[in-house]
Amino acid sequence: MRWNMEGILYGIGVGPGDPELITVKAVKRMQGCSLIGIPAKDPASCTAYKIAKEAVAGLEKKPVVAVPVPMTSDTEKLSKAYDAGSERLVKELREGRDIAFLNLGDPAVYGSYMEFHERVIEAGCKAEIISGVPSFCAAAAKLSVPLGSRQEQIHILPGLYCTKKLEQYDGTQILMKSGGQVRELKEKLLKLEEGGKAKAYAVMNCGMENEAVYQEIGELPEDAGYFTTIIVKKWKA
Amino acid sequence: MRWNMEGILYGIGVGPGDPELITVKAVKRMQGCSLIGIPAKDPASCTAYKIAKEAVAGLEKKPVVAVPVPMTSDTEKLSKAYDAGSERLVKELREGRDIAFLNLGDPAVYGSYMEFHERVIEAGCKAEIISGVPSFCAAAAKLSVPLGSRQEQIHILPGLYCTKKLEQYDGTQILMKSGGQVRELKEKLLKLEEGGKAKAYAVMNCGMENEAVYQEIGELPEDAGYFTTIIVKKWKA
Repeated sequence: MRWNMEGILYGIGVGPGDPELITVKAVKRMQGCSLIGIPAKDPASCTAYKIAKEAVAGLEKKPVVAVPVPMTSDTEKLSKAYDAGSERLVKELREGRDIAFLNLGDPAVYGSYMEFHERVIEAGCKAEIISGVPSFCAAAAKLSVPLGSRQEQIHILPGLYCTKKLEQYDGTQILMKSGGQVRELKEKLLKLEEGGKAKAYAVMNCGMENEAVYQEIGELPEDAGYFTTIIVKKWKA
Repeated sequence: MRWNMEGILYGIGVGPGDPELITVKAVKRMQGCSLIGIPAKDPASCTAYKIAKEAVAGLEKKPVVAVPVPMTSDTEKLSKAYDAGSERLVKELREGRDIAFLNLGDPAVYGSYMEFHERVIEAGCKAEIISGVPSFCAAAAKLSVPLGSRQEQIHILPGLYCTKKLEQYDGTQILMKSGGQVRELKEKLLKLEEGGKAKAYAVMNCGMENEAVYQEIGELPEDAGYFTTIIVKKWKA
């Protein structure tokens, strides 16, 4: 126990879905913190919380600081939400509470936690990142496919670039948040495969109850959701 | 206990260095396996073994299958080593032993384990990958820097491409195995920084005893070793 001291904000990577793919350090920090932070309006709507609850006995007894982040690309709205959330976190830290803030996968890989991390440090508080297994590593494991070997390049492309950069890059491409573009992507990928230029794979809801693994990209449903990772291995011409 | 059954090969990601950054699943598998596999000539020369030993009490009492991989880019020599190593692993699996094969970071990210994985499956045995935290996630955590946020691309470039692709790609570049090219890289990176086009960071031996974190790339020593990760955040022109 520490007295008369400010708390520390821990950005915890809870991994890709399987509660056992959380690190030992993350489990210990969640056990040691008096508060659990979530980037959602309540625990029931937070995937990271559901995973953490399975990994740490008694987690649901700890009080939760809910700092929701709107699903929008409006940067002004987002900034306001991050500012307001950070103020709440800082208030708790100044009262001496340590906070375990949950983040799917790894916080540094497109994690909303990083926005709070920067703001809380700027406000003069302490914050630390506890790394987690990113979803694409777990997807590769399920598919038994290496992401990179020897001198291969790996490109991680979020939504906006998924269809645009497919022809451009050599090596492995990891297409994240590709929901909504699946029809277009499948068409392009099947064409690349027919031409002997690539092999594509996909995993939907990796490590979760409704996980589905696709060794053939042709079988990926066109209404595949947000948590779909597509892995493309491109051969050099 | 299982009788009259073939063993399973587990490719275990032991994470980037800190023994607490191993997943709960990896710890359980190492405890459950009767044999520990290493891609080195003996435990003393194997970094992954040193990390695992700290994470799992009594690990050093388990027998080790050492399948060394030569440090060479000669693909024929490498293939021979992987073939011979896989034969040894298959022999143990056929005698009913489960093997926990250790791999630094995540096996799918440039892990030598994947070579054994493919061959062992081809020989008709069972093999499974237990994901780990890749070194670049831990490096980002130490630096308090996001690898990707919102629509940023992330490019992971091993040795050969480190200096070549620096100008070409937008977003974040992770330069791995850049030892030997540090002088040239530093020159280029400092020029990009002066032009306001990028900010570069580095971590040497992340999570290990001799770890060093460089918020300023100018301070990275030119004789930085194999386990040096450089992170470059490029701003759009």
